[in-house]
Amino acid sequence: MPSGSATFRAEQIELLTNLIHTKTTSKKFGNAIEKLIDLDNGEILEENLSTQQKAALREWRKDYLKAKKLPKKFVREFAKLCAQSLKPWTSAKQDNAFNRFAPFLERLVDKCREKAEILGYQDHPYDALLNEYEPGTTKKDITALFNVLKPPILDLVSKIASEPTINNKFLLGKFSANKQMEFIKVVMSAMGLNTSFDRLDFSSHPFSLALHPSDSRMTTRIHPKMLMESILSAIHEGGHSLYEMGLPQEHYGSPLCQHVSLGIHESQSRWWETLIGRSRPFWEHFFPIIKPLFSGKLKDVTLNTFYRGINKVEPGPIRIEADEVSYNLHIVVRFELEWLLMDGSLSIRDLPDAWNEKMQQYLGVTPKNNAEGCLQDIHWAFGLIGYFPTYTLGNLYASQFFSTFEEKFPSWGKSVAKGDLLFVKEWLNTNIHRHGKKYSASQLAKHVTGKTLSSQHFIDYLTAKYSEIYKM
Amino acid sequence: MPSGSATFRAEQIELLTNLIHTKTTSKKFGNAIEKLIDLDNGEILEENLSTQQKAALREWRKDYLKAKKLPKKFVREFAKLCAQSLKPWTSAKQDNAFNRFAPFLERLVDKCREKAEILGYQDHPYDALLNEYEPGTTKKDITALFNVLKPPILDLVSKIASEPTINNKFLLGKFSANKQMEFIKVVMSAMGLNTSFDRLDFSSHPFSLALHPSDSRMTTRIHPKMLMESILSAIHEGGHSLYEMGLPQEHYGSPLCQHVSLGIHESQSRWWETLIGRSRPFWEHFFPIIKPLFSGKLKDVTLNTFYRGINKVEPGPIRIEADEVSYNLHIVVRFELEWLLMDGSLSIRDLPDAWNEKMQQYLGVTPKNNAEGCLQDIHWAFGLIGYFPTYTLGNLYASQFFSTFEEKFPSWGKSVAKGDLLFVKEWLNTNIHRHGKKYSASQLAKHVTGKTLSSQHFIDYLTAKYSEIYKM
Repeated sequence: MPSGSATFRAEQIELLTNLIHTKTTSKKFGNAIEKLIDLDNGEILEENLSTQQKAALREWRKDYLKAKKLPKKFVREFAKLCAQSLKPWTSAKQDNAFNRFAPFLERLVDKCREKAEILGYQDHPYDALLNEYEPGTTKKDITALFNVLKPPILDLVSKIASEPTINNKFLLGKFSANKQMEFIKVVMSAMGLNTSFDRLDFSSHPFSLALHPSDSRMTTRIHPKMLMESILSAIHEGGHSLYEMGLPQEHYGSPLCQHVSLGIHESQSRWWETLIGRSRPFWEHFFPIIKPLFSGKLKDVTLNTFYRGINKVEPGPIRIEADEVSYNLHIVVRFELEWLLMDGSLSIRDLPDAWNEKMQQYLGVTPKNNAEGCLQDIHWAFGLIGYFPTYTLGNLYASQFFSTFEEKFPSWGKSVAKGDLLFVKEWLNTNIHRHGKKYSASQLAKHVTGKTLSSQHFIDYLTAKYSEIYKM
Repeated sequence: MPSGSATFRAEQIELLTNLIHTKTTSKKFGNAIEKLIDLDNGEILEENLSTQQKAALREWRKDYLKAKKLPKKFVREFAKLCAQSLKPWTSAKQDNAFNRFAPFLERLVDKCREKAEILGYQDHPYDALLNEYEPGTTKKDITALFNVLKPPILDLVSKIASEPTINNKFLLGKFSANKQMEFIKVVMSAMGLNTSFDRLDFSSHPFSLALHPSDSRMTTRIHPKMLMESILSAIHEGGHSLYEMGLPQEHYGSPLCQHVSLGIHESQSRWWETLIGRSRPFWEHFFPIIKPLFSGKLKDVTLNTFYRGINKVEPGPIRIEADEVSYNLHIVVRFELEWLLMDGSLSIRDLPDAWNEKMQQYLGVTPKNNAEGCLQDIHWAFGLIGYFPTYTLGNLYASQFFSTFEEKFPSWGKSVAKGDLLFVKEWLNTNIHRHGKKYSASQLAKHVTGKTLSSQHFIDYLTAKYSEIYKM
């Protein structure tokens, strides 16, 4: 979008945020739902409702009570501050000038703290923010999951570091954007995406945004030097898109046609990007298709070399370029800093150093500057504190769902190796997508897998996959 | 946009149309303006207002009274019908199956007639529709302008037909889309367009849409065989964009930051596309720039040959591919059929034949089928009856404005031949754009040129230009 109109867009966003808040907190809406559900205790007052209708009411009540807590003035100010913070962040990142963004981040953290106080929490202000993105999940829950996750991942990373390094030079260089797009379209079509209902463009940050289950817009980005960047981004966004397009459109406008949580959303994108898109069976089918497109680079590369290359583990400073094994350590860094910022234990001034220390501690890497350090992600500039943990939750949910999928389709690899991905999509449609918000994230995990969320499936998956790749 | 989501979009458009109608007819808005202006007779009730404020009130009152006349139900139904008609039109045009679109066109004409009755008119129901796009202009006005215009144009076309035909083969063939875009960007930048505030994309139909004076989006289309199609389309849309971006943004949200009429809007696009973009001075500067981009085709072409080639007069069946001379005859055909449809003198069933007869009468051309006949334009499918005459008004206003511009800059050609277009943009900014809706279209013509609108400047322009080109 044209940069010169950022101010105008900020005003529009402020206006829309306001209108949405006014509508969702209106007396009219409150009166309508309180005939059916007790606003105080959540008891359903009307017997003859379906399970789905009851679930929708439960969600509407929750959203209504939360929105009612937030004063109009606060909502407006917060939206405005976020809109104003984007430009300083962009410029600070570009010129490696943390101080340019610092005063905005200071205000953003203050506002988030204020928001937490308004919304309320039991143990820690961070819980109130987490609840925005992953309803019902607390800092304590995330800490527990990370406590189980960290040791085996750190162990895996250090073991891998002592193995011979994997060659992936054939993935680096200049690759035709048109040919990348051509290949991506083949993959997306196999995934069950359909250009009658979506479109894919290029942008500087990949994203997926569905306006309706029949209208999804996605972007990917062409990395100037890395072949897999655009392809895996597109598969990732395709996973998000399939989720949104698998929601039951007859319930459009109600929580039954909304995603459960960001963790569940991310489980869908990571499912496709990692469990499928970085798997050997996937490339058994697609490597012969991509190879002739980039024959200059891939001519002498075998499937096995390619598969190992795209799964090379190499901790680095940048989250979005991270491999599957070290990825969640980036989230640990952010999570541990965010709650320190939130409860005031860490000041903005000390953030860059604290970031670099954590990066050294968990990834053994020190960013060469703040641009590739604490300024790398856009999230905070959007006011999104408490959002990062949902990325790890996505990985955990995906692996846990996959274990159930694998029980049902023990030879899924054989089908995928033939290019058949539709049964995968259909399993997700049936087991995850069609429910909308009928279940909470933890209920859904229980419903699909019979168990509450744990880190174990993900650890098992990583250990098995990377022991094989690194022959350990 | 994805075709599969057309139904969803239709519902959204219906909803938005409804919301806009509700807001613009609200008691709150009515009460606010009636303190300042007498709703019955338009008398300003508050002395201490600027001319601009009075003009804004005059427009607000007009829009308010008009919107109040239209029942909510009618607005909703009309929006829905338009949304539903798009697909049948597309498919009818594609397969040359008029009958597929006919029942929708029937309903569209009925609805337009109903609209005219609701809005009211003095002489002819068509007046009420014209008034939507060109406020204050009637069928009688258009007829009078065409009566002056038709004889000299028909004369010019027939004289040209007896001259040796101009060679423009070098403009036909396959031209790299990237290079066309590259050239277009050079032209747009010279016109004073600025990518900080706009963007240009490709689409199947060129358009320009400004969300705000600081945010304009344009598209052009690459014709599979014709070089000038994308370039002239882009210059045309650039003219629309400059208008919208020249509106005074401090008045955003009020009529003072709105275009006067579609005729005035079109005068801005046609100004750039024809008076500048098809002029010899323009190509004196830009031909040496475009030539090396398409050296395969243009290597042996001289400036003079190129200039004559892009101005070749050759009546054909398709409006948007028409030359400057025969273009308005396409509008005559549509105008004369539209008002017959509106007053019931012509039935939908007889439309294809009537179209073909008029095409033969005015252009000496019979379309080979309805797809290139009465199905060619999208306007009716959007419910836009009474819109076409604004295209001719655009040409007339442009020529009349240009005559004043030429008095001020008698040697404009010398500057343009050096690639200087900014003084042209600035003249338009100062004389046309910055007024917004302060003046009506006819007041603006008088304000800028000292005269009311006539066909004469345009006739003089065409006659001089094409006598020279065809050496007559």
